[in-house]
Amino acid sequence: MIRFNCDYAEGAHENILNRMMETNMEQLPGYGGDVYCAQARKLIQDKCGCEDACVQFLCGGTQSNLTVIAAALRPHQGVISADTGHINVHETGAIEATGHRVISLPSPDGKLTADQISETFEAHAADVNHEHVVQPKMVYISNPTEIGTIYTKKELEEISSVCREYGYYLFMDGARLGYGLTAEGNDLDLPAITGYCDAFSIGGTKCGALFGEAVVITNPAIREDFRYIMKQRGGMLAKGWLLGLQFLTLFENDLYFELAAHANKMAGRLKEAFWQHGCRFLIESNTNQQFPILQNNELERLKTKYSYSFWEKINDTHSAVRFCTSWATKEEDIDALVKDVVAL
Amino acid sequence: MIRFNCDYAEGAHENILNRMMETNMEQLPGYGGDVYCAQARKLIQDKCGCEDACVQFLCGGTQSNLTVIAAALRPHQGVISADTGHINVHETGAIEATGHRVISLPSPDGKLTADQISETFEAHAADVNHEHVVQPKMVYISNPTEIGTIYTKKELEEISSVCREYGYYLFMDGARLGYGLTAEGNDLDLPAITGYCDAFSIGGTKCGALFGEAVVITNPAIREDFRYIMKQRGGMLAKGWLLGLQFLTLFENDLYFELAAHANKMAGRLKEAFWQHGCRFLIESNTNQQFPILQNNELERLKTKYSYSFWEKINDTHSAVRFCTSWATKEEDIDALVKDVVAL
Amino acid sequence: MIRFNCDYAEGAHENILNRMMETNMEQLPGYGGDVYCAQARKLIQDKCGCEDACVQFLCGGTQSNLTVIAAALRPHQGVISADTGHINVHETGAIEATGHRVISLPSPDGKLTADQISETFEAHAADVNHEHVVQPKMVYISNPTEIGTIYTKKELEEISSVCREYGYYLFMDGARLGYGLTAEGNDLDLPAITGYCDAFSIGGTKCGALFGEAVVITNPAIREDFRYIMKQRGGMLAKGWLLGLQFLTLFENDLYFELAAHANKMAGRLKEAFWQHGCRFLIESNTNQQFPILQNNELERLKTKYSYSFWEKINDTHSAVRFCTSWATKEEDIDALVKDVVAL
Amino acid sequence: MIRFNCDYAEGAHENILNRMMETNMEQLPGYGGDVYCAQARKLIQDKCGCEDACVQFLCGGTQSNLTVIAAALRPHQGVISADTGHINVHETGAIEATGHRVISLPSPDGKLTADQISETFEAHAADVNHEHVVQPKMVYISNPTEIGTIYTKKELEEISSVCREYGYYLFMDGARLGYGLTAEGNDLDLPAITGYCDAFSIGGTKCGALFGEAVVITNPAIREDFRYIMKQRGGMLAKGWLLGLQFLTLFENDLYFELAAHANKMAGRLKEAFWQHGCRFLIESNTNQQFPILQNNELERLKTKYSYSFWEKINDTHSAVRFCTSWATKEEDIDALVKDVVAL
Repeated sequence: MIRFNCDYAEGAHENILNRMMETNMEQLPGYGGDVYCAQARKLIQDKCGCEDACVQFLCGGTQSNLTVIAAALRPHQGVISADTGHINVHETGAIEATGHRVISLPSPDGKLTADQISETFEAHAADVNHEHVVQPKMVYISNPTEIGTIYTKKELEEISSVCREYGYYLFMDGARLGYGLTAEGNDLDLPAITGYCDAFSIGGTKCGALFGEAVVITNPAIREDFRYIMKQRGGMLAKGWLLGLQFLTLFENDLYFELAAHANKMAGRLKEAFWQHGCRFLIESNTNQQFPILQNNELERLKTKYSYSFWEKINDTHSAVRFCTSWATKEEDIDALVKDVVAL
Repeated sequence: MIRFNCDYAEGAHENILNRMMETNMEQLPGYGGDVYCAQARKLIQDKCGCEDACVQFLCGGTQSNLTVIAAALRPHQGVISADTGHINVHETGAIEATGHRVISLPSPDGKLTADQISETFEAHAADVNHEHVVQPKMVYISNPTEIGTIYTKKELEEISSVCREYGYYLFMDGARLGYGLTAEGNDLDLPAITGYCDAFSIGGTKCGALFGEAVVITNPAIREDFRYIMKQRGGMLAKGWLLGLQFLTLFENDLYFELAAHANKMAGRLKEAFWQHGCRFLIESNTNQQFPILQNNELERLKTKYSYSFWEKINDTHSAVRFCTSWATKEEDIDALVKDVVAL
Repeated sequence: MIRFNCDYAEGAHENILNRMMETNMEQLPGYGGDVYCAQARKLIQDKCGCEDACVQFLCGGTQSNLTVIAAALRPHQGVISADTGHINVHETGAIEATGHRVISLPSPDGKLTADQISETFEAHAADVNHEHVVQPKMVYISNPTEIGTIYTKKELEEISSVCREYGYYLFMDGARLGYGLTAEGNDLDLPAITGYCDAFSIGGTKCGALFGEAVVITNPAIREDFRYIMKQRGGMLAKGWLLGLQFLTLFENDLYFELAAHANKMAGRLKEAFWQHGCRFLIESNTNQQFPILQNNELERLKTKYSYSFWEKINDTHSAVRFCTSWATKEEDIDALVKDVVAL
Repeated sequence: MIRFNCDYAEGAHENILNRMMETNMEQLPGYGGDVYCAQARKLIQDKCGCEDACVQFLCGGTQSNLTVIAAALRPHQGVISADTGHINVHETGAIEATGHRVISLPSPDGKLTADQISETFEAHAADVNHEHVVQPKMVYISNPTEIGTIYTKKELEEISSVCREYGYYLFMDGARLGYGLTAEGNDLDLPAITGYCDAFSIGGTKCGALFGEAVVITNPAIREDFRYIMKQRGGMLAKGWLLGLQFLTLFENDLYFELAAHANKMAGRLKEAFWQHGCRFLIESNTNQQFPILQNNELERLKTKYSYSFWEKINDTHSAVRFCTSWATKEEDIDALVKDVVAL
């Protein structure tokens, strides 16, 4: 069985494990107060072009999302998200467990638009009963989105602009950020994201690390005492250097982007193969997640050799599924799958 | 200015104030441990045909909803509601502030159907990632709904039946229950509701009391230690007898139903007048809330003498508005409005 | 049975009920947007000497405390309280239910000192692991305290001064404020309290009203969007004018202080009687709560005619109990009790 | 600088890293659904003598504690802890952030007694106002405690017995469990703990793993849907096999106990050295944490070569400090420190 069902099926890039081996018996201070976290923090600040950004390392994505949101909002405030947003669908109500509503807006492509945010603001402001309604205060976007699409610089600029006009915080969940920043058609980079967002995450778990997310916060209101809230929510790793080491390894020599570009290239080959086969796609994606629509009997055949994720039923004979590549995807596995798609 | 904008614009039926006067200097134990609460509790149990129902008195509707839901759910569980449900739109995220998601389902008429609940259950059960998704555990319905519609016995029976099949709690918000139980076309009564629901509220605030909701709980899992949670959420009134006295007054001689029937009759006259005028309605209602669609210039004219609630824009020239009657609506005020509608 | 067990055993001063009667059929806007709330708000602002204080009316004390604290604190922050503080002992964990720790400090007399607050600040600041510890951010005091003692102006000034030095909010729970401000030895008044505190409450429930607390907030960080949080926590009464009317009545002609002074005078007579009888007291109090230490057999005899609250066991033969007077205490009931104490 | 300030200053036992290396490119299902977690789970169930215990793997201690407690308690319930308990002092209010009070009891030796628990139960049961007070429902103990002491079998049996009598859950935080189970004087083992507790954790982070805690739950009320709550609180690691692999390695051939025994032996040598030097100790400990009381000038001298944790000031000239050993402590480092202590 070859797994294409997700992008976290293998461990980590070998450089990371080697570095853990090398440093294993060094005695280091805990909770991220070590030299490797300091170096990784500095490197990320440099890449972001923002020397005083607060950079913290957490173990996972749900943890990062709930911690940032808990740090940012007062009790009556909510966070706007596309209905496909990870916080809205796959975190078991983690945001609500911190006391806040996820205000979900419909989105066929997984993205929010500046207009949607403006309409939400206007509707709240115009409501004579606004005190009886959750107050929107933060905008959560994922880049790439949960369905593989990416924001353009212009789209992000417009969103950032309306957020600043309304006093909304803009938070980008970058669990798959590397795949977005190396995708065909992408015109964003870390400095641009740093400039447009109040906080964002750089995902390690799905992009070459064993585990870990770097959270970058520029807005002073969110970064103040952020580490208290990390600790409170169980997100402060005792041996914090394990996270620092990983991000240091990923961002030295731009390994992070190299790994992501590989995954996108592999995904591009799959996309081409499905396309040649005559498939439609649930959504056009240039990143490591591809959502072809296949006949159910074709899927049955592929299932004997490959795992994929069921996404949604299209009709009685067709389904949309997800094939994921990752930093670890082997060329030969893609060769095999492409061949089998051709043979369908 | 004659107010038709809501059903809580006046104080209370005079019997209630008189009784408060009479008992004012009696020395009574606090927190609902008094003789009037005991009598009101007994009377409501009798009317519900359920001697061992737990009956508690709280000050308001949001308080009742959040306390019942907090008492019922574990952290990962959510409550299903129509998208128009009060907990979903007008409680400033009170449910999320207790840590729980409101799982909203689309509803053109303010009601949920047994089929919608079944589909929600089935979708959750079939999801291989169900642990990553909020677990539905309670169904919240309002009767009458926020837009004046009511459940039939058959509908409630079906909902109750699927809830029991899936282990879901069924909670009915009866903030306007009197208006529902005395509406044309209603075939529900208190014993039926008691039998079908795990918990429900009997609204006083909008139905003749100064303030107060009686919460009736039959399911042992929700009633256990309910009073601790009432206290914790600020819902245990020190002079609890003020609530007991009001419900005692309302349920002796069925004053509660008499007052509600009056409001429905007054609303019926409005409905007829708008109908004769040629109005369409946003929704067909037989209760005290009516939602006619009027021309904006007609609304401007009515606004000089009457207050109403703006509900939603229909098009550039028409809007849907809400006219409410209540236990306190005066026949002469209806006469005046009917005359002015005819004259439009 | 004559009740001295608490100060909320009767309804309200007759002026309040009369005013409710008179205004009962007036049509008024909801949620505190009415003319009576506006007048009461203005009157309290005048009495406090602070025209732009935010004055909101809530139903009860626990509700007021939890709403103010939820409005003030970020997730990792806690509220310092005397171990006897109401939020620490008698609110079923209402503060924890909003996510915050009550940091309790030992207090033999129910009061906190500026030194205790300084020590708490210093200990936190000096702790190298302070990110692993709840951050103190608010000081909660009760005046009078739960055991009847009061703060002097000097004490309050010192507490206020250290709070401002450390950036702590100072919140005074004034559930029995009237009894404090009219006590022998008191040198505080509303303008002083307004100047020293960031927020405080003026209790109605125990001081002549049917129910209700006025919350006065001067700190902009707490008052911002306070009404959203009131609504979210179930503390926004639909017929808000019922609260406005009561506080208007209590503060016109200083009825509030007149009623409190009466209670204190009655308590003074009890204190004198117990003193003459040779009792020691658990604590010296000049307010409406008295804590004599009596022989258990004496208590048995008093119990046949009077109710009181058991407070704590002193030894095998003696107990400390609480006798409360209130605005409603009758001179003749005090006469009877004094006579019976003399006869012990 | 040689670090004795904590027991998490190095990475992991080499077997663990080697195994991560070996399995790095295996494709595995996520979230703990892999073969290594299954094997580790089975092995731990075997060691505990309980085939149907629920065994889950989380990243850290605070996360484990808050997840178990959130899973167990209803909103009005609190958890009893020694005042030195980790949840009471070093988790930044993590438990309060889930809505629950930590009910702390004084403890000079870091342990709770069955009598203290009984008294807490009795006091709550006897309180006529018990509905106004947080309801105790769980007992949290640490073994070893935060100050190195351990429970005997008899003590744990008594605690378990009163917990079952009162319907309290018993939860043991075993962040350093290995060090306790291999300490001189210990008579507990995993099957006994499994039998006495409703839930407990087996700490990996401080006992040879890179990171990770195994939570063992026997009580059906806590284990039901536990994984939903893990996910909600950010405690479900995407690459869950990283935890499974570590615990599998630690429990095969009892490496876990071997590593812990080594640390205790090293600590014993330190204890002996301080003892010979004439030191008193803050507390008698047979585990890897030692709390000698030293002169401040002696501490200054040691500080040039060794790190330790300041614990508390004893008087103007003496302080209690903590020296920790761990699975990774080198014999030669102990030799050096012992020599320097002798030379003081």
